Amino acid sequence: KMVTDLLPAKNGEEYTMQFLLEVVDILTNYVRKTFDRSTKVLDFHHPHQLLEGMEGFSLELCDQPESLEQILVDCRDTLKYGVRTGHPRFFNQLSSGLDIIGLAGEWLTSTANTNMFTYEIAPVFVLMEQLTLKKMREIIGWPNGEGDGIFSPGGAISNMYSVMVARYKHYPEVKIKGMTAAPRLVLFTSEHSHYSIKKASAVLGFGTENLILLRTDERGRVIPADLENKVIDAKQKVIGGSVPCSRATTSPTVYGAFDPINEIADICEKYSMWLHVDGAWGGGLLMSRKHRHKLNGIERANSVTWNPHKMMGVPLQCSAILVREKGLLQGCNSMCAGYLFQPDKQYDVTYDTGDKAIQCGRHVDIFKFWLMWKSKGTIGFEKHIDRCLELSEYLYHKIKNREGYEMVAPKIKAMMMECGTTMVGYQPQGDKVNFFRMVISNPAVTRSDIDFLIDEIERLGQDL
Amino acid sequence: KMVTDLLPAKNGEEYTMQFLLEVVDILTNYVRKTFDRSTKVLDFHHPHQLLEGMEGFSLELCDQPESLEQILVDCRDTLKYGVRTGHPRFFNQLSSGLDIIGLAGEWLTSTANTNMFTYEIAPVFVLMEQLTLKKMREIIGWPNGEGDGIFSPGGAISNMYSVMVARYKHYPEVKIKGMTAAPRLVLFTSEHSHYSIKKASAVLGFGTENLILLRTDERGRVIPADLENKVIDAKQKVIGGSVPCSRATTSPTVYGAFDPINEIADICEKYSMWLHVDGAWGGGLLMSRKHRHKLNGIERANSVTWNPHKMMGVPLQCSAILVREKGLLQGCNSMCAGYLFQPDKQYDVTYDTGDKAIQCGRHVDIFKFWLMWKSKGTIGFEKHIDRCLELSEYLYHKIKNREGYEMVAPKIKAMMMECGTTMVGYQPQGDKVNFFRMVISNPAVTRSDIDFLIDEIERLGQDL
Repeated sequence: KMVTDLLPAKNGEEYTMQFLLEVVDILTNYVRKTFDRSTKVLDFHHPHQLLEGMEGFSLELCDQPESLEQILVDCRDTLKYGVRTGHPRFFNQLSSGLDIIGLAGEWLTSTANTNMFTYEIAPVFVLMEQLTLKKMREIIGWPNGEGDGIFSPGGAISNMYSVMVARYKHYPEVKIKGMTAAPRLVLFTSEHSHYSIKKASAVLGFGTENLILLRTDERGRVIPADLENKVIDAKQKVIGGSVPCSRATTSPTVYGAFDPINEIADICEKYSMWLHVDGAWGGGLLMSRKHRHKLNGIERANSVTWNPHKMMGVPLQCSAILVREKGLLQGCNSMCAGYLFQPDKQYDVTYDTGDKAIQCGRHVDIFKFWLMWKSKGTIGFEKHIDRCLELSEYLYHKIKNREGYEMVAPKIKAMMMECGTTMVGYQPQGDKVNFFRMVISNPAVTRSDIDFLIDEIERLGQDL
Repeated sequence: KMVTDLLPAKNGEEYTMQFLLEVVDILTNYVRKTFDRSTKVLDFHHPHQLLEGMEGFSLELCDQPESLEQILVDCRDTLKYGVRTGHPRFFNQLSSGLDIIGLAGEWLTSTANTNMFTYEIAPVFVLMEQLTLKKMREIIGWPNGEGDGIFSPGGAISNMYSVMVARYKHYPEVKIKGMTAAPRLVLFTSEHSHYSIKKASAVLGFGTENLILLRTDERGRVIPADLENKVIDAKQKVIGGSVPCSRATTSPTVYGAFDPINEIADICEKYSMWLHVDGAWGGGLLMSRKHRHKLNGIERANSVTWNPHKMMGVPLQCSAILVREKGLLQGCNSMCAGYLFQPDKQYDVTYDTGDKAIQCGRHVDIFKFWLMWKSKGTIGFEKHIDRCLELSEYLYHKIKNREGYEMVAPKIKAMMMECGTTMVGYQPQGDKVNFFRMVISNPAVTRSDIDFLIDEIERLGQDL
């Protein structure tokens, strides 16, 4: 019989369940190997090689169905030619690691296969989101965890929300009349801020030239005086003399620097500006009593981006935008679509969160995070964060004391990918040459993995 | 030992794998029951009931970790109080069904836990996306499948992309200078179009009052003459006399009507306007040789939204925005972030798709869809679509010939939720009263389920 006739399991037929269990077998083997340091991080192939087809693994889609046996082969090959982001020697991205509880949570989420827009079709998940967001606001330091928030498809969208909400707060007429109804609006951000702020300025109709970049000190932190000067300057130039409305401080993309939030908040208050803190990466530090002081002043922000899928090790995707003032998200985005958000439902419709979002359907990102929090407790996350920072410090001292450690990043990186033994990102910054950009967020990383990385970079660089 | 110390499986320890397999056991039992018609669709509880805690199921997050046993209980309870969107009697949303291949694909995706922005960290998925998008463009009817596209987090975002790209095509300076650099821009859409177009007009800075609604005929289709009149009218009013830039035809949200795309395309060409076809729901019909004529003219669109997670039954989320002209997505959104999209990589970096997106990180939505396509073949999707349309026709005739079938939707809906035997959405439309909005996309639905729904509505309505 053809697969087409057989799937889905119309009555939970045993052979389809059997198929699913065979996939599980492939996946659990993959997970086991991911934590085995003798396994490669990746088995690199160029695009044209994969496109040409590797021993029976063809990416092409056909008119006729494949057998279930071939589907299993496809699954195995997809993993074989992919990258093991959970491997203890994968340092390439801000998201890494493979938390088993989080993974189980994600499997459950896809099995439930529902949507976040209404309480009606996602009662448990909607409540979990609400409780978790409240907890996050408490941890930020907003009184009683008051405020609002929503999980969004990643930090770039969360940052975009912050600019939208800021615009709505200062110029609510833009929602109805468009950007031409407001004076020229400008945004301020660090010259080292994440490029998503620039994307947001283009998308939302501010224009990228109205994003004003702030100078930073030698450690990559915004210089508050530069902000104040540029605010005064912008005010003088703006036709109509109106106040620029938004500012975003940064989750460090390269330096890992933390902006002086309190000093920036003073300036924002003085000039009635919105303060957004991009804690996509850094937000995780709030879980640590030892390190949260680095974000002192964050409780004065009007909005905060915080991605549990980065430093906290939650599987992708899991990003929250948190807003101090309640009602703005709803005001900004609600369109009151009658067929989804009927006011005459039999339950309390204030739980229907869909109209706060710029999305209609919204993926359930909360469950894996909620489940991890349950299993680790707040103290478990704290422990994880403290450990990541300890390891960074270890790396710093180790390199500092090592002779001859100057970088020729791109060439070493290429060799590293061919070898597949470890993975770390690189980039140039300003007038500096290319350098490796080291990220630690995987709980499986130990000091020995850091040692390995350093040795490996040295080994690969020997012949250059 | 505390869970915190034990997870993740640092070396794939057996007990963590055991835990994962126990979760799989819970999930496969859930799947089996989902297809069992004697199981309820939902076990409804009000928000306050779930918040107060149901027999040992507490949503609250604590400082201390829970035991793995409790985590398993949490998983079971989460499913217990949720909604079975895969149940053959769930008709409540455009997304329904639970395809086992798609589910396996999603489990694999979360196990791979990677991100779509670069070939470097998602080589296989990036290529699958590229091939699948090309195939979709071929099916739309664009020559050689040329053009561009990307998977986005849902139809609302895909529709937003279309407006952004249209704006960039006609007024590229908006990216840098903002909306004030362009004349007043207006959007045209059906009075029955999805509310995401209205959201996009607010988000992108057009303003909702610059979204001009088009009248429809008795079957809910846009009246082309009304479009032309309104275009002429808008041109006269626009300061600077510039051309309005975008129009979206609709994936029917309520009536299930198909706009006359060819006639609309004529007008768009005449006035140099962008034509976007929102086929979030209806796009699936393109897979059917029998029904694709309903979308005749779609090949003349400049962009198309098409959500495989709707009529095609792919698990959430899976939505594509397809653009006929190559380079626009990149031009519109690229910000050239040096630390992600290094031009000096050792592989062909045209495969790095991240800079086309408004997101930075992007969830892997392609794999489950690719795997389902592999397993069903194009003809398998065609079969599924044909079957859904047959069932709709069956329902139509059945109701037409049934006496006394007038609706008191909200009350019946409330009783239906309490009973949990079936689920269907409802809404008012224009001057019509509330009515049920029936959706068929689950391959597990049979005629007997349609019969059941009709009987159930009648049964529940008897005492009203």
